[in-house]
Amino acid sequence: MNEPGQIASRRIHTGRIINLDADDVRFPDGSTGTMDIIRHPGASAIVPLLSDVTGDDPQLLLIRQYRYAAEGFVYEIPAGRLDAGEAPETCARRELTEETGCTAAKITFLTSMWTTPGFTDERIHLFLAEGLTSGETKREADEFIEIVPTAMSTALDMIERGEIQDAKTALGILFVAGFKLGR
Amino acid sequence: MNEPGQIASRRIHTGRIINLDADDVRFPDGSTGTMDIIRHPGASAIVPLLSDVTGDDPQLLLIRQYRYAAEGFVYEIPAGRLDAGEAPETCARRELTEETGCTAAKITFLTSMWTTPGFTDERIHLFLAEGLTSGETKREADEFIEIVPTAMSTALDMIERGEIQDAKTALGILFVAGFKLGR
Repeated sequence: MNEPGQIASRRIHTGRIINLDADDVRFPDGSTGTMDIIRHPGASAIVPLLSDVTGDDPQLLLIRQYRYAAEGFVYEIPAGRLDAGEAPETCARRELTEETGCTAAKITFLTSMWTTPGFTDERIHLFLAEGLTSGETKREADEFIEIVPTAMSTALDMIERGEIQDAKTALGILFVAGFKLGR
Repeated sequence: MNEPGQIASRRIHTGRIINLDADDVRFPDGSTGTMDIIRHPGASAIVPLLSDVTGDDPQLLLIRQYRYAAEGFVYEIPAGRLDAGEAPETCARRELTEETGCTAAKITFLTSMWTTPGFTDERIHLFLAEGLTSGETKREADEFIEIVPTAMSTALDMIERGEIQDAKTALGILFVAGFKLGR
């Protein structure tokens, strides 16, 4: 009857992207403690392939983006936060268009992951986009993005060599390579 | 001469695991803004194989751990925060022993990743452990962990089916499957 979970929650900081709560928590053994937790609305990310996934070494649109937290530019796949009430697939399509200018003939859900569940409730929903048609980008003011078309085989080399260092990006590419390319 | 990066930093919250700063930032186009950033000491995680990686469908030690942020139990690989001044490999060995009781004949560095660079400087360093010898676990008070030996092929199925939902865990397993198992 005393299930593990929240006993009480106190908002410490309300930010533009994240909020910080200090929560009183009951653990599975019945003990209690206080934990800091970053509340995040969740996000979608999308592995964008120019052709379809069955093609011979399909081209992927990586983006190279300035990330203050990483003190530099990071290779990523298009991604962004869910708007209030927004479905993950709608968010994935929106971010694909905003960041690359492209729309996709086909979108497939891959998986949802906790980004770092030790301290945040952020979940990221991963999608595959196939058959891109280009259009116009619509970036947010604080996004500094360059589009880098990259063969899947090269992207895998970049993960292995440590040149792709963003977790959702490596995960999305390895997921597609492992389960969709039929290797 | 005005490189992108930090102009000023103000500590908003000092926690047991994370700190929250509000930083004034210069972006690549010279514009400035304020960003919330979660400061984290970094972490190591380790893919623990009972045998060596070249074996036929090697057994992996997954752990099933209570995560308040995920509102339940999550399948993970052993992982934890770097102690002050601790080398990532030392941390990986320590967490492996604390959480599974095992020591490894061989440890190999895989890659380092930003867990979610939109709002935290947390980096996770991924390792592969081969040839485990069991011993005693030494868990921290707030860790509620069950060890779940799992064939690599089953772990890959669990990722594809969405039963493994922790990003570092899926990433570590897919990295090993993609680059170390020679598939």
